[in-house]
Formats: sequence, C-alpha cells, structure tokens
Amino acid sequence: MAKPMLQVALDTKDTATALNIARQVVDVVDVLEAGTFLIYEDGLNSVRALRAIGPDKIVLADCKTADAGGAVAAECKAAGADWMTCINAATVPTMASAQKEIEVQIELYEGWDNEERAKEWLAAGIDQVVYHQSRDAKFAGQTWGEKDLASVKKLIDMGFKVSVTGGMKAEVLKLFAGVPVYAFIAGRAIHGADDPHAAALEFKNEIDRIWD
Amino acid sequence: MAKPMLQVALDTKDTATALNIARQVVDVVDVLEAGTFLIYEDGLNSVRALRAIGPDKIVLADCKTADAGGAVAAECKAAGADWMTCINAATVPTMASAQKEIEVQIELYEGWDNEERAKEWLAAGIDQVVYHQSRDAKFAGQTWGEKDLASVKKLIDMGFKVSVTGGMKAEVLKLFAGVPVYAFIAGRAIHGADDPHAAALEFKNEIDRIWD
Repeated sequence: MAKPMLQVALDTKDTATALNIARQVVDVVDVLEAGTFLIYEDGLNSVRALRAIGPDKIVLADCKTADAGGAVAAECKAAGADWMTCINAATVPTMASAQKEIEVQIELYEGWDNEERAKEWLAAGIDQVVYHQSRDAKFAGQTWGEKDLASVKKLIDMGFKVSVTGGMKAEVLKLFAGVPVYAFIAGRAIHGADDPHAAALEFKNEIDRIWD
Repeated sequence: MAKPMLQVALDTKDTATALNIARQVVDVVDVLEAGTFLIYEDGLNSVRALRAIGPDKIVLADCKTADAGGAVAAECKAAGADWMTCINAATVPTMASAQKEIEVQIELYEGWDNEERAKEWLAAGIDQVVYHQSRDAKFAGQTWGEKDLASVKKLIDMGFKVSVTGGMKAEVLKLFAGVPVYAFIAGRAIHGADDPHAAALEFKNEIDRIWD
C-alpha cells in the first residue's frame, strides 16, 4: 500500500507568515498548500513564494475554483503550482478546462454526494478529491467517524486518490490504518504549533509507523 | 417595482487594470465587484482599491467562499467590502457566520436547485442570491431562456433578492421586463468594451427605459 503523503495547509494572514512556517517544515512535508484564506489575502503571490521555498515539493493552490477553470488554472500554473483545487459545485466543463492546464483536486463540500456526478469527474480525467471531516461528526465531538471512513473508502474504491482534512491531528491517523489515503492535510495542527517542525515530524512519524 | 441596480464585475488580471475601468464607470454603476479572478491575482488589495475609488458605491468581494465564512468575511469587511459572495456548496453554518460580519450573496452553481436548502439560507438571514445563465442555454446558442427566467422568478417569489449574470449584454435586459431583478452583473461587456463608460451607460439607459 502506498504511503500517504503529508500536506501542510498554510491559511495564514500573509505570505511572510506562511513562508516562515514553510521554511520550518519543508524538509518533512510532501505538499505545500497556499490556503484559500491566504490566497484571498495575498493572491497568487503566496503560491510563487511557496514554489520558491520548496523547489522540489508539490505546491497546491487551494483556490476552490467554481468558474473560469482554464483561465484560473493557467495563472496558478504560471505562479508555480502543481495542483489546484476546484469546488464540487463547479460544472464538469469548468473542472475539465482546469485539468487541461494543471492537476485538479475537487474539494467535497455540500451537495457532493452524488455518485453519477463523481463518475463524470473521473470520465473528465480528474481523479483527486479532498474529503472534509463531516460537520456532524465535529458537532458531535467526534474526530473522525465511521461514516467518514466509509465515504473515504467508497471514493477510493471508485478510483479516486483521496486526501483527507478537517481537525487533523497526529493521533487521528491510526483510525485510517489499512486505508490508502493519498495525503493527510494538516493546517492549524502544524502552523499553529509552538514548534511547527516537531508537529510535522509527529505526523510524518505516525504515517511511517502505520503505513510501513 | 424597484429599479434593478447595475454591477460591474472586474475580473481583470491586476488591480491597476480594474481601477482604470472602475474610474471610467464609477459614476454610472451601483456596485463595483472585485471578481474572483482578480482576488486570486491580487488578494483583497483589489477590494481596498475599489473602495478607495468608489467611496459612495457598494463594493463586492466575489470570494465565492466555501469555508471559514466568518474569518473571510471579517477580512473582506476590513478591506472595505459591503458584500461578499459564498458558493452554494458552503454549509449553512459557514454562510451564517459570514452573514454576521457582512452582507452575503450566495452564488448558485451546480447542485443549488434544492428548495429546502434555499429555505435554510433565508432562515439564516441570507436573502441575496446570484443566478448564473445556464450553460445548457449558452451551449444551445441562446442568451437567456425561459427556464432561466422561471428560475429567477421562483427565487424572487421565495423572498430572495436575485442578481443575474452570465453573458449579460444590454440587449438582453428587455427579456427581464416586469421582473424585479435586484442587480444586473456585467463583466466583459463593460470591461472588455472599447469605451467602458459608454458600455455601462448603455446598460443604465436600458434599465431606466424598461423599469421606469
């Protein structure tokens, strides 16, 4: 079973703060993500900066694009991104036009749970999705529930590379033992830690231990 | 019947270009929109610039926010925006937390057509939606079809203020005669025109003529 990758989501208020975190974790993580919040704050300048600091890493522009997929994707690529996110509410032609320029991840928010639609994504050549912990589970005080795990497994069975996010902590990873998750996405647990490098290593060591 | 407002969507590649257009049309339009594409390019700096050039206009940050609604809305408000968009795929709590900070417009992309969900938006105090011309109509070579008009009217009957966008041209407006559209959103028809001021005036004069 392929070992899951580790992705750090940098949802900071400015690029300099994101860079400071990225500098500390770049030797540990596989994917550097310019978070949506950061892109709103500072535009694709944030992506260019992450590319500069992680020349051999995957850089993700978390645009959650809903429209003008090809045009946005071309800009993300020019800024140095390898991947870009689209929101599940984008039309398939929007996603497909983005996929022509760059590798697309589809972010699964409300209304995504439609198997026919998901098959259209695969048919359009898009095989990456990001699964978010359900709010129901979160409100119920759970970290990740059986329902979440079942959804992740079903998407993998359909043929998707599934990254997971939402309240991700190192101690949560063992719940996914035996599941070929594509990447674990950690935000605050890394960039909000007193020692981001140590926090990233904790994730990385758990991944190495569980998916050895 | 209230007269529809005119909104210019500035989806340019940089803030300076958007400002150059805004300067030419600010005396004609009611709403200056920092388009999603522009926000990706230059962040909320674009919103600050539009607020500076249109101190007495409504400024919209077209973030199409899917998550962290309250945090994003606070940033948009601080940048000078009056309104912010959320994508229909955002959860109701995300939208509601944004609405506490700023006036929210919900952008209706794929999967929006769920009356129960729409009622939840109203119950959360959100009464602005943006209807996009259907791609089906566009692919069929139509401008706006009866199906689009019926959807717009139904949303208005439910209690929404409905703005419309997508391939909007001045000659399209007469199709909406008798319908209390909240705002017409024109993008390329204004910012791509040789004379943006004249193009905006053409829209404004059609609105004045039809909704007199």
